[in-house]
Amino acid sequence: MAGNSFGEIFRVTTYGESHGKGIGAVIDGCPSGIRLSSLDFESEMGRRRPGQGAFDTPRKEEDSVEILSGVFEGLTTGAPISLFIPNKDARSKSYEILESLFRPGHADYTYFKKYGHFDFHGAGRYSARETAARVAAGVLAGRILDPKGIIVAAYTLELGGIRAESFDMDKVNGSPLYCPDPKAELLMEEALRKAKGEGDSLGGIVEVRIIGCPPGLGEPVFDKLDADLTKAVISIGAVKGVEIGAGFEAARFKGSENNDPIIPAGFRTNKAGGILGGISNGDEIIVRAAVKPIPSIGIEQDTVDREGRPSRIRMTGRFDVCAIPRVIPVLEAMVKLVLADHYLRFRAMKSLQGE
Amino acid sequence: MAGNSFGEIFRVTTYGESHGKGIGAVIDGCPSGIRLSSLDFESEMGRRRPGQGAFDTPRKEEDSVEILSGVFEGLTTGAPISLFIPNKDARSKSYEILESLFRPGHADYTYFKKYGHFDFHGAGRYSARETAARVAAGVLAGRILDPKGIIVAAYTLELGGIRAESFDMDKVNGSPLYCPDPKAELLMEEALRKAKGEGDSLGGIVEVRIIGCPPGLGEPVFDKLDADLTKAVISIGAVKGVEIGAGFEAARFKGSENNDPIIPAGFRTNKAGGILGGISNGDEIIVRAAVKPIPSIGIEQDTVDREGRPSRIRMTGRFDVCAIPRVIPVLEAMVKLVLADHYLRFRAMKSLQGE
Amino acid sequence: MAGNSFGEIFRVTTYGESHGKGIGAVIDGCPSGIRLSSLDFESEMGRRRPGQGAFDTPRKEEDSVEILSGVFEGLTTGAPISLFIPNKDARSKSYEILESLFRPGHADYTYFKKYGHFDFHGAGRYSARETAARVAAGVLAGRILDPKGIIVAAYTLELGGIRAESFDMDKVNGSPLYCPDPKAELLMEEALRKAKGEGDSLGGIVEVRIIGCPPGLGEPVFDKLDADLTKAVISIGAVKGVEIGAGFEAARFKGSENNDPIIPAGFRTNKAGGILGGISNGDEIIVRAAVKPIPSIGIEQDTVDREGRPSRIRMTGRFDVCAIPRVIPVLEAMVKLVLADHYLRFRAMKSLQGE
Amino acid sequence: MAGNSFGEIFRVTTYGESHGKGIGAVIDGCPSGIRLSSLDFESEMGRRRPGQGAFDTPRKEEDSVEILSGVFEGLTTGAPISLFIPNKDARSKSYEILESLFRPGHADYTYFKKYGHFDFHGAGRYSARETAARVAAGVLAGRILDPKGIIVAAYTLELGGIRAESFDMDKVNGSPLYCPDPKAELLMEEALRKAKGEGDSLGGIVEVRIIGCPPGLGEPVFDKLDADLTKAVISIGAVKGVEIGAGFEAARFKGSENNDPIIPAGFRTNKAGGILGGISNGDEIIVRAAVKPIPSIGIEQDTVDREGRPSRIRMTGRFDVCAIPRVIPVLEAMVKLVLADHYLRFRAMKSLQGE
Repeated sequence: MAGNSFGEIFRVTTYGESHGKGIGAVIDGCPSGIRLSSLDFESEMGRRRPGQGAFDTPRKEEDSVEILSGVFEGLTTGAPISLFIPNKDARSKSYEILESLFRPGHADYTYFKKYGHFDFHGAGRYSARETAARVAAGVLAGRILDPKGIIVAAYTLELGGIRAESFDMDKVNGSPLYCPDPKAELLMEEALRKAKGEGDSLGGIVEVRIIGCPPGLGEPVFDKLDADLTKAVISIGAVKGVEIGAGFEAARFKGSENNDPIIPAGFRTNKAGGILGGISNGDEIIVRAAVKPIPSIGIEQDTVDREGRPSRIRMTGRFDVCAIPRVIPVLEAMVKLVLADHYLRFRAMKSLQGE
Repeated sequence: MAGNSFGEIFRVTTYGESHGKGIGAVIDGCPSGIRLSSLDFESEMGRRRPGQGAFDTPRKEEDSVEILSGVFEGLTTGAPISLFIPNKDARSKSYEILESLFRPGHADYTYFKKYGHFDFHGAGRYSARETAARVAAGVLAGRILDPKGIIVAAYTLELGGIRAESFDMDKVNGSPLYCPDPKAELLMEEALRKAKGEGDSLGGIVEVRIIGCPPGLGEPVFDKLDADLTKAVISIGAVKGVEIGAGFEAARFKGSENNDPIIPAGFRTNKAGGILGGISNGDEIIVRAAVKPIPSIGIEQDTVDREGRPSRIRMTGRFDVCAIPRVIPVLEAMVKLVLADHYLRFRAMKSLQGE
Repeated sequence: MAGNSFGEIFRVTTYGESHGKGIGAVIDGCPSGIRLSSLDFESEMGRRRPGQGAFDTPRKEEDSVEILSGVFEGLTTGAPISLFIPNKDARSKSYEILESLFRPGHADYTYFKKYGHFDFHGAGRYSARETAARVAAGVLAGRILDPKGIIVAAYTLELGGIRAESFDMDKVNGSPLYCPDPKAELLMEEALRKAKGEGDSLGGIVEVRIIGCPPGLGEPVFDKLDADLTKAVISIGAVKGVEIGAGFEAARFKGSENNDPIIPAGFRTNKAGGILGGISNGDEIIVRAAVKPIPSIGIEQDTVDREGRPSRIRMTGRFDVCAIPRVIPVLEAMVKLVLADHYLRFRAMKSLQGE
Repeated sequence: MAGNSFGEIFRVTTYGESHGKGIGAVIDGCPSGIRLSSLDFESEMGRRRPGQGAFDTPRKEEDSVEILSGVFEGLTTGAPISLFIPNKDARSKSYEILESLFRPGHADYTYFKKYGHFDFHGAGRYSARETAARVAAGVLAGRILDPKGIIVAAYTLELGGIRAESFDMDKVNGSPLYCPDPKAELLMEEALRKAKGEGDSLGGIVEVRIIGCPPGLGEPVFDKLDADLTKAVISIGAVKGVEIGAGFEAARFKGSENNDPIIPAGFRTNKAGGILGGISNGDEIIVRAAVKPIPSIGIEQDTVDREGRPSRIRMTGRFDVCAIPRVIPVLEAMVKLVLADHYLRFRAMKSLQGE
């Protein structure tokens, strides 16, 4: 009822706050026989870690993932896999001002309304730190998808209004902004510098491509593949919109333009974004997510205190300018969780057909 | 695992196909003491029914909802409520061509890949008829929301590229296109006529406003209110994109533009669309859905047969030109299902606080 | 949350009361390709029907099962299967006395405490009629188990203190008391006649044998096969105790007596009742259920009215003397639901191993 | 699907093996505002710990519970509570013989059939160590029940065939055998000494009383309170039978004997064991569990090796003679988990009535 679990067969439950001992994920339903070691998590956890880019805050958390259970002699056993990420920097931040004022654009206000308190020591469950557990679980999901050739790749399509025009996927991983277009990236960096100078922040659009997904994943009515992907993506705090394939553009096409002609090799076009009737069609799956600008800015803003009295807030300290570089590994992880779950559901269903 | 249920406390399970005896919904977890009669369903079911507008197919299904259980002397008892909608027009359609060819833009292809068959007699669970069960369940959800003053209203923001510019909500219900702008509606009708003449179809954008939602609904991590709303909306077959509040526009705002200043009365602006950190903030909740053009068109298209051999398909018969008028009641129903569930979760949580 | 669903993969949701239009079950997760027609339900529904034996009430309900969805051309499609059993005899019984007095041994008192009302027109969800939906769902479960050679057979081990001493399974189905021992049956009938004459009722013990269950069914921790079987059996209103294998006798054995020696062919004895560590071991699974005497008796009893004032109640009308003949088909159905669900979970898990 | 979670609102997921880093439980759905510290776990964990009594193995595990999340300034926050119990003695036991032979009465055989392997280093998820996570979660459940005056007390009713005849609850906690009858306890100890001398083991019967449970807990159909209690109790490996109230004795009563007369103060007798129609009636709830003798014995037994070849096994090392003293805290914990979950479900339902 409290919504800290995700998935049906491959079911992930996360816990933890930034001020406690750590955060973690328990995955129930992972098949046995998958090779897994704590080293497997390093690169993904590194990507999610703040404090790497010029536009990031200089905090440094060494996020190592401990496997507490479910692996024996290097292989998953079929028992629940418990992943734990200790908090290294758990001391409370001393934002005294936050004890009384709600930060615009943050969840302070809604938490206070819901729970009667909000956690000014580091935002409790709505801390960005919570997403580290998702990334860790996503690594395990990846171990199910990789051997099947199902690849998830996200990149920055747009940042601060600047759109990538060329798509060289080899550039993405080398780029601090995950941008496939080096020219656009230079402009994006300039926009970030400018925003930083103004104490402001920027948003953008991330595109995710899922390559190698076989046809047949997704359930026809409520648990459509696109429905679950969309929920997964929007469950990331900064995301305010999601599209599949042609997305909002499809609203302006005619049927004759939007239908993808079917050919022996599959489909001639991919307006559908790889999903028809909620089920993968074997084509590339394309998801786009709108990422809002980070709400923490250095510019003074109107707010109220806990008693509802008008006030002004100016946040000090160091903030990221744009969430995208940190959102991308989380987005990929969430997409992998959906795919691993639906892949296992599909395989299980197939094995039961005609039973 | 097969995904025919939706919701956590207020849990809806639907069943049924267009060629069988009927379709239905069972709702487990509906509180007792809610007044309900089969008459309550008439107006909503009527809105969903095809064959009403000039641009709809002339089929006519008299959709009456039978209450099979869970109501005693006019009040819900706390037992499961079973709603049944008999199929009146259950004879198979005689689209012989569909027995061998996949219709572009439909789920024929993916169903065939998933299940090894597709249901050419009326599309099985991916028939639009399935949504009648959602609308019926949505009426019950509305009976929970209405007394709390939580109102869900959807209207056509854009159709065939023509956008409403004025928003007179009183016009919406009288309008066959659910358009709040009479001038735009005239242009939309013209576009529909033109598309119809060409044997083509149109899409558009629907906007949903939720008025009167108290702050506090939604769970912080995976079951965020916007995540569940988004899943609900995308689970409608024709929807290819969803936005909350500023949505994709937020990607181009700066933080100082996108943050809604907090004032004693609530928020000065509503870029957030009424949801912060996945929890309702007391402001109007705004959801937009991109509806693709109907894939059934009278223009010949490329396709393949079941053996994968290239072929051409021209669909005959009468088709709707735009799905929006039929999607709107379904959209409202799905939004109500999410709200009723989260409202009950919120109230239950509140009642347990400090237990 | 309201507990009207059962099972994980093969998930049954039931609804309905004796005073409404009927009762039903929706099964989500049934594999496709299973042959099913409404005739398949006849014999099981007939067994459950009251009014057959000399010691039963003479009511007669013609329980036919309608398949509302999920079957196409005689085969399940993978879509939810909706089964409906219309109430033929839905007029309220005229037990005026029940409007104000709680019947001892019935759930009137606890329903009133829980919901603030109880349903004197026929007991609502705690009516024995609710079990017809379980029997119908059990028939479908049987269609999954039968082709695998998994057979469920229940019989009367003890009735009114008289215990079967010989076990001729061929006698069971011909016997109105499901008794495998014709000599014991004569004594049981005599005891029933005597109790009937006294306006009293009798209980007994039912034994269920599951033959042909392969090893490996059951999950190791909470969803052990015996745990789910036990829950299923106790969820039948009249059952007050459950044993697996040696059961309570095991409490008096020494380890050397209770351990089943393992031999190449399996096990030399079967104290374990076919389940070790919550997982089936390939041997016969043995479950015993203690059935209490029917609480409706013709003898005057102490009770209170709704205001808590002491009163006396004497129930008139015609009642069954012993619940066992009607409980047996329900018991078999519940056991089949558990087995079908765990069988599918097992097969799904196996298909995913090493994925 | 893999069955490592339990409960609906108060949902516990456990993980961990005896050979890994530790075991743990994550509880999602715990209300906020409950005082909790790691000290709260000490006494219960101490009770479960082996190596205390004269008839226990001398192993000593210092089981401390770490609260990894969900508590802030000593109070639960509504976020998931993660409890972790590090393994102190994680080195593999050197039972070389177990690498090839199945131990009779243990789950080695069924695990091997299910997963293709069994964990001879300490029994994986079927290790008794798994239950430590249940006890820890049970402590949290107790924090919900205690303030409501709902008390769970278990004691040894019978051991090695010797039955307690007097019931002085004050004696229970001081007794290493949890026996309420000091005279019977002396005989039980003698029986244990004798069995130990023979290299054999003993079983018994545990009775659990739930005092102070208000009427109304339990759902009418599948999730009856007794059904969930029974599942919880049987999910403990050593338990082979469960009774509620009169249990198997009820099978021999007449209706006039078994019905509890209703009086203004409640019920004159308690054959029902505090539950009617699956719902608590306000009386004491009485559950009895049959505990089998420990399968690990020093007497040589027939078995087979992994290839199915007949062999003999004699287990060396030190084993407990009777599981009851270690089972009792686990039993209490499981009963508390069920009660906490149903208490919260009941309170939530009540708060929604008439919504």
